Amino acid sequence: MATQTTLIRHGTVVTAIDEFSADILVKDGRIAQVGTNLDDPDTNTVVEARGMYVLPGGVDIHTHLATPGGNGFSTADDYFTGHRAAAFGGTTTVLSFADQWKGATMRQTLDTWHAKARDKAAVDYGFHLMVTDCNDAVLDELAEFRSWGVNTVKLMMAYKGRAMVDDAVILRVMQRCKELGLLTMVHCENGDAIDVLQRQAVANGQTAPIFHALTRPPQLEAEATERAIQLAQTAGGAPLFVVHCTHSGALEAVVRARARGESVTAETCIHYLSLTKDRLRGAPGDAFEGAKYVCSPPLREEADIAALWRGLHTGDLHSVSTDHCPWRFDIHKSLGRQDFTKIPNGAPAIEERLMLLWNDGVNTGRITRSQFVALVSTEPAKLFGMPNKGSLTVGNDADIVLWDPAATHTISAETNHGAMDYSMFEGRIVTGMPALVMSRGEVLVKGAEWLGKPGRGVFQHRNSKV
Amino acid sequence: MATQTTLIRHGTVVTAIDEFSADILVKDGRIAQVGTNLDDPDTNTVVEARGMYVLPGGVDIHTHLATPGGNGFSTADDYFTGHRAAAFGGTTTVLSFADQWKGATMRQTLDTWHAKARDKAAVDYGFHLMVTDCNDAVLDELAEFRSWGVNTVKLMMAYKGRAMVDDAVILRVMQRCKELGLLTMVHCENGDAIDVLQRQAVANGQTAPIFHALTRPPQLEAEATERAIQLAQTAGGAPLFVVHCTHSGALEAVVRARARGESVTAETCIHYLSLTKDRLRGAPGDAFEGAKYVCSPPLREEADIAALWRGLHTGDLHSVSTDHCPWRFDIHKSLGRQDFTKIPNGAPAIEERLMLLWNDGVNTGRITRSQFVALVSTEPAKLFGMPNKGSLTVGNDADIVLWDPAATHTISAETNHGAMDYSMFEGRIVTGMPALVMSRGEVLVKGAEWLGKPGRGVFQHRNSKV
Amino acid sequence: MATQTTLIRHGTVVTAIDEFSADILVKDGRIAQVGTNLDDPDTNTVVEARGMYVLPGGVDIHTHLATPGGNGFSTADDYFTGHRAAAFGGTTTVLSFADQWKGATMRQTLDTWHAKARDKAAVDYGFHLMVTDCNDAVLDELAEFRSWGVNTVKLMMAYKGRAMVDDAVILRVMQRCKELGLLTMVHCENGDAIDVLQRQAVANGQTAPIFHALTRPPQLEAEATERAIQLAQTAGGAPLFVVHCTHSGALEAVVRARARGESVTAETCIHYLSLTKDRLRGAPGDAFEGAKYVCSPPLREEADIAALWRGLHTGDLHSVSTDHCPWRFDIHKSLGRQDFTKIPNGAPAIEERLMLLWNDGVNTGRITRSQFVALVSTEPAKLFGMPNKGSLTVGNDADIVLWDPAATHTISAETNHGAMDYSMFEGRIVTGMPALVMSRGEVLVKGAEWLGKPGRGVFQHRNSKV
Amino acid sequence: MATQTTLIRHGTVVTAIDEFSADILVKDGRIAQVGTNLDDPDTNTVVEARGMYVLPGGVDIHTHLATPGGNGFSTADDYFTGHRAAAFGGTTTVLSFADQWKGATMRQTLDTWHAKARDKAAVDYGFHLMVTDCNDAVLDELAEFRSWGVNTVKLMMAYKGRAMVDDAVILRVMQRCKELGLLTMVHCENGDAIDVLQRQAVANGQTAPIFHALTRPPQLEAEATERAIQLAQTAGGAPLFVVHCTHSGALEAVVRARARGESVTAETCIHYLSLTKDRLRGAPGDAFEGAKYVCSPPLREEADIAALWRGLHTGDLHSVSTDHCPWRFDIHKSLGRQDFTKIPNGAPAIEERLMLLWNDGVNTGRITRSQFVALVSTEPAKLFGMPNKGSLTVGNDADIVLWDPAATHTISAETNHGAMDYSMFEGRIVTGMPALVMSRGEVLVKGAEWLGKPGRGVFQHRNSKV
Repeated sequence: MATQTTLIRHGTVVTAIDEFSADILVKDGRIAQVGTNLDDPDTNTVVEARGMYVLPGGVDIHTHLATPGGNGFSTADDYFTGHRAAAFGGTTTVLSFADQWKGATMRQTLDTWHAKARDKAAVDYGFHLMVTDCNDAVLDELAEFRSWGVNTVKLMMAYKGRAMVDDAVILRVMQRCKELGLLTMVHCENGDAIDVLQRQAVANGQTAPIFHALTRPPQLEAEATERAIQLAQTAGGAPLFVVHCTHSGALEAVVRARARGESVTAETCIHYLSLTKDRLRGAPGDAFEGAKYVCSPPLREEADIAALWRGLHTGDLHSVSTDHCPWRFDIHKSLGRQDFTKIPNGAPAIEERLMLLWNDGVNTGRITRSQFVALVSTEPAKLFGMPNKGSLTVGNDADIVLWDPAATHTISAETNHGAMDYSMFEGRIVTGMPALVMSRGEVLVKGAEWLGKPGRGVFQHRNSKV
Repeated sequence: MATQTTLIRHGTVVTAIDEFSADILVKDGRIAQVGTNLDDPDTNTVVEARGMYVLPGGVDIHTHLATPGGNGFSTADDYFTGHRAAAFGGTTTVLSFADQWKGATMRQTLDTWHAKARDKAAVDYGFHLMVTDCNDAVLDELAEFRSWGVNTVKLMMAYKGRAMVDDAVILRVMQRCKELGLLTMVHCENGDAIDVLQRQAVANGQTAPIFHALTRPPQLEAEATERAIQLAQTAGGAPLFVVHCTHSGALEAVVRARARGESVTAETCIHYLSLTKDRLRGAPGDAFEGAKYVCSPPLREEADIAALWRGLHTGDLHSVSTDHCPWRFDIHKSLGRQDFTKIPNGAPAIEERLMLLWNDGVNTGRITRSQFVALVSTEPAKLFGMPNKGSLTVGNDADIVLWDPAATHTISAETNHGAMDYSMFEGRIVTGMPALVMSRGEVLVKGAEWLGKPGRGVFQHRNSKV
Repeated sequence: MATQTTLIRHGTVVTAIDEFSADILVKDGRIAQVGTNLDDPDTNTVVEARGMYVLPGGVDIHTHLATPGGNGFSTADDYFTGHRAAAFGGTTTVLSFADQWKGATMRQTLDTWHAKARDKAAVDYGFHLMVTDCNDAVLDELAEFRSWGVNTVKLMMAYKGRAMVDDAVILRVMQRCKELGLLTMVHCENGDAIDVLQRQAVANGQTAPIFHALTRPPQLEAEATERAIQLAQTAGGAPLFVVHCTHSGALEAVVRARARGESVTAETCIHYLSLTKDRLRGAPGDAFEGAKYVCSPPLREEADIAALWRGLHTGDLHSVSTDHCPWRFDIHKSLGRQDFTKIPNGAPAIEERLMLLWNDGVNTGRITRSQFVALVSTEPAKLFGMPNKGSLTVGNDADIVLWDPAATHTISAETNHGAMDYSMFEGRIVTGMPALVMSRGEVLVKGAEWLGKPGRGVFQHRNSKV
Repeated sequence: MATQTTLIRHGTVVTAIDEFSADILVKDGRIAQVGTNLDDPDTNTVVEARGMYVLPGGVDIHTHLATPGGNGFSTADDYFTGHRAAAFGGTTTVLSFADQWKGATMRQTLDTWHAKARDKAAVDYGFHLMVTDCNDAVLDELAEFRSWGVNTVKLMMAYKGRAMVDDAVILRVMQRCKELGLLTMVHCENGDAIDVLQRQAVANGQTAPIFHALTRPPQLEAEATERAIQLAQTAGGAPLFVVHCTHSGALEAVVRARARGESVTAETCIHYLSLTKDRLRGAPGDAFEGAKYVCSPPLREEADIAALWRGLHTGDLHSVSTDHCPWRFDIHKSLGRQDFTKIPNGAPAIEERLMLLWNDGVNTGRITRSQFVALVSTEPAKLFGMPNKGSLTVGNDADIVLWDPAATHTISAETNHGAMDYSMFEGRIVTGMPALVMSRGEVLVKGAEWLGKPGRGVFQHRNSKV
């Protein structure tokens, strides 16, 4: 890339703390200057942003791309289609899980995921390493993670017989993470109990999608959240990130821990902020439509939605992510027509995330524009060790979104840009959407036009000590 | 037993709700009348109780008698020595655990324990059946428990590799208990995590008794208590009894559950009300003295002691039991001289319980005499399905203690009446002790004299639906 | 009264802790014996109680009889009609408030109330002295209260300009109560704030009964409850009894205080356990019907009702009283037709209390029969210093109710026995009611028949140190 | 001011969310550009900032300058000496209270305070209007506040007989504030109760400074905080700012309110983060030394300090202010030698604030540098309606501090720059202090040199709707 200098003029810059009118000068992919009446002789491109908000590109720290589901398939979006969809939605950095498989070393795991991403990535990316088959060698390998650019480890308390690990493993991994400066991310649901309930449901002929929710009751998330918190304390105060908090009781466990001064942070995901478990009942006459909403933890109740919005407002939740885990309805979800336990878990939202949070949060006054920026970009970037992302700060990567607050958009799988054949938000009309999306100074999206290309995304070497 | 009629005169009767001057007429082992100036022509015996409190005999619902420890030994007290010690302390009903062993049916288990008790029991007794090796047949057998006179099931969340069961078993047992009207009693500590910490301690040469406490930190009890509570909810609201609550955080979980209206009750044990974990450090120059205080959960901090007393006062704790699990210092505890994990867990207090609670609770004004009666007798009797025990009510068994509030006693293993060679309370001077102890109208203890005999104790058929 | 000996046979005695079959022998107004197959040569009367529960007479510790309302009227029930109604409902002890008036000494106040009661009282009675015009002389008089047989002081945080006292008075009274062994009872609502809201409502033409509730929002009760609790702590830990707790937030303040180990107890009243504030909207086309439900604190929401039932179950609430403050609809309530602030506050339930709690609590399984007895009789008797009341204990007053659990009754003002022209529960059908009511061995009520007489009630000299 | 262009080069800019290397170009008192290698032909001054942190100037939103104490004196610092001291400590915006006096209109009050400040102000400033004598006219005047540049109202729940207002006033003012978009700031302590305790203490001869703390126990702050919160809810959800939160119980009330989603924010002050109430006991042999630490609420316990640091960390506290209320020891504090109630309340820290929070917070790892900036500058600026202050954002006022993290300083009244004759932190050695302080582009402080001048400060017209 030859020297490229772009001047974004007349926009209203929004940061996690304030907003102001300013021009932004981008040089060689970085933010070189922020100022009034900027002028640079090298400017090749001028972007007029009058009437637009200028935001840092979104950071989605919770996605599953090109990931085997143990059912012979991988998630529908690969690192190109997933990233392209992300970019159209205003997200320019995507962290995905690299899942250890039985017998694999963590290095093999990471290499495999690097291979998936390398030639396809369209936005900047990184990995969390998910430990599913722990042993002493794996615990030793943790010492290398930061040198590999990975300072986050994922553990599953659910998915018995597959990715789930027991409390002994959780404790041992957390002890190492504390020692090595890694952040432990935990999926908090009691897998043992869920397994019992699922078997009983199936044995009773309760096979429709709604039983997915009914066999994962919220108290099993509250319990597991408390357990993860106490194990982190037992590990000497290991920093813990609770992924996809969905339930008021789980959030209360997080709030109690934070009030005790413990190093506990948490996210929720965009679908938990507006959809309830009634969706899993499907459409009239078509219960299996509910399969589109099968994800774990499951969708909850209105009271939980209210609690989560309060958590965003009070700062007890630090990110609104997606848990984008795209399984098509035609091919994948349909595997579970006779048995909900065979419906692959996961729900797509990588493209809709910012539009929905803006529409449901900012437009309604529930959160400010600065809180929006904090939740979709700044806080996740900081928490996950990407100081050059997440804010429109001099020296940072020029990941910039021009956000048109007046534009209206109808969400639809047809017009989405990933590989999915449905959207959980089909037909919802939102106001506010990206007009232009830039990654390290390159325009990826301009209106409806795709200007990006596979393989341009750069691996984010996240090696800071947590 | 020929017709035996005893008149107890001029005492002050204390119940869980009040106290009053009255005579009590005992006929054929039952309380026939309570009244003023009672007079019955059949009276064979008159007991003068002036200056005494007349209390219902103590009910200790948490003991381990003649129980194998997996170390080649059984606990030191059998059903005679243990019961005799209990009686000297004013306790006339003792429930013990009957522990399933690998491969045994629950019926075999119960039969085995009946055989241990039948010819030895000196006070009335009953069993909780402890499930340690669960399978479908065991779950089926639960349906018979109430017909066997056992309406309580015990589960261990700790003791990995031995009695511990996993969450799937806990949930399935709780579901059955809910269905069948049984009460689930749970030992709440995270056995997986403790196992990790113990192995690490031993590997690091940290083998002294104090490491018993340090490898069982209180948050692992708080966590497990919350988990048991949420599993009980998942089982449809199964009634849960949390055994030996020791930690403020665990008690808070109980209080939260009760405030949500859930069916959760709990006990603490007498040693957790005055001793702290410093005891496990042993004596100057003799760290292994600490082994005498090795029990699980371990002794905690002063702040926990204060929280437990508050819990007794507010009614969030429903029994002060002993967890009497007597391992002699000379033979048994000493097995762990080189390795604290080999110290058999357990602490004796079956004889000291009432004296200590009276001395530390009633004499100090922390609890009233009625609360004392409720905690050592009435509440445990009611909760555990023994309507004829626990209160001096007409028709009830005449289990009666004459309590001398002025008598002073120095606690010592030498003068205790069980098989143990040490007391955790050696040398403590208490004021208030039994002067006479009666079980179903028979005098077992009169001052220092033993009048009971082995085999007279009667199995309590506890078949009520919980 | 000549020697009167009554034998109640074959009933099921219910106490706060258990129930059992027994006869009860009553001599000279006291319970002489409880036993099986009792037989006494002096027996004049035999009462057959087969199929009945034998309960201690109800204790209603919160009533306002013959009390001036500052509107030229006094409450409709005097010490005869109120007591007669109480007796028909199974209540045999009634504590009422003796309200100081401006300039009165406390002794004058008490004398005045004694004069109201002396010749009319039909059941046993006592007074709480309500301080409304505090000064140093009043604070001095507190030292005499216990010698006068009054160990309870009432303070109002509401009713600005009338009975309300400020925080300085509350603190000073509580300090004295702590010092003197008196219990402070506090009506917790923020009177200053309510006064503002009421004036604003009236100024806005919002004069219908529903505005009574809307100008007394629940957070003003939560606030005041917290304030009373903290003032009691400031007074050195003065024992506090929170009257008529109606709101989940207020109950939470009580629970928090109790968990900190503070001496805080509380009651709710019978109407708060089933009626919501919608009642104040009146009937279709007749908004003023709502006036019948105007009491303070006002009726609340369903969520509060659920919280109060949980509080009864967990023991955080210690009495279900009535706050019987009877203002007739025709004469008194109607004063407020043009202005809800002129509707005299108060609601009658002195007769319905036990029937409603049995029907809504015991019959539904929310509380046990023993909890019923505890809440309507035993606990209030103990808390308020009447050791001879509240339990069927030898030596206690023979205040006995034969309760027919099968009898069905339709509540109606027409068939009630007080002076009121309406019932809040008109038309409700309840199952379970008194068949016979006895006070100190005298039968007051036998089925529908009244056998009592004015002036027989005895003042309860409550002089114990709280 | 002629065109002045300053270039600050090579510093590390710290914002509330991140830090980065950048130059800052200041033009005409505003931040014109932030960027790398900035260069502007108009630059008159270059400031070399290598090795320095470049921070936004501190914002102290809680001070009392030139304020009458009702004792014949005014606080020792006027708008020049106070501002100069602030500037030396790195604070460039100071909000002070303008206290209504009896009978004054709010406009008179504001005019009076404008007159005090106009010719003296050395940094930018603004006022909160404190209502102490409320009536309908005052409530009407509130409608003008925002047009006067004041969007904050202060109310006192303490100081009975002086500034204290009752709950009716609080509610009415909050209702108006809610309606008009004003923020209510409340001093939360129960003035009625404190007044009682103080009179009792003095009557008992308890006149030493320590009795100041003992007559203002922490529960009276917890109570009042809960009360202010509930009154704000009663006012329809009026935004509430709790000033100087000092006690764990008060903080818990704030946390509960925030968890319910209410609009409640809070500050603590710098002295509550390290000093305990033991300071009020004075020096050995000189109890009156304690008078230097007499402020309200009083200093608390170590446990409260820990709670406050946790509150800063979790974001439940939004500002660390000073409550700078400077009364000299020689002239003012000494008025209370015979009677602690005559010691003027208040403690000086306007100069020490940033140095102490950096030293005790950043250097110890309790908070990050970004949290430091948020707490002393960004958050208070945003919350109090000063969008041009509090962050180094393009277009904002060039209030800039060059912070030398390596410099060490010994705090002393002698070297401080205000009018005070003592410091609460005398002799404390801190690391990290301002090297240069700039206000709107003008250098006020350069090392130990004062370059500012009286009257240059500009009134901040804070008219945004809260």
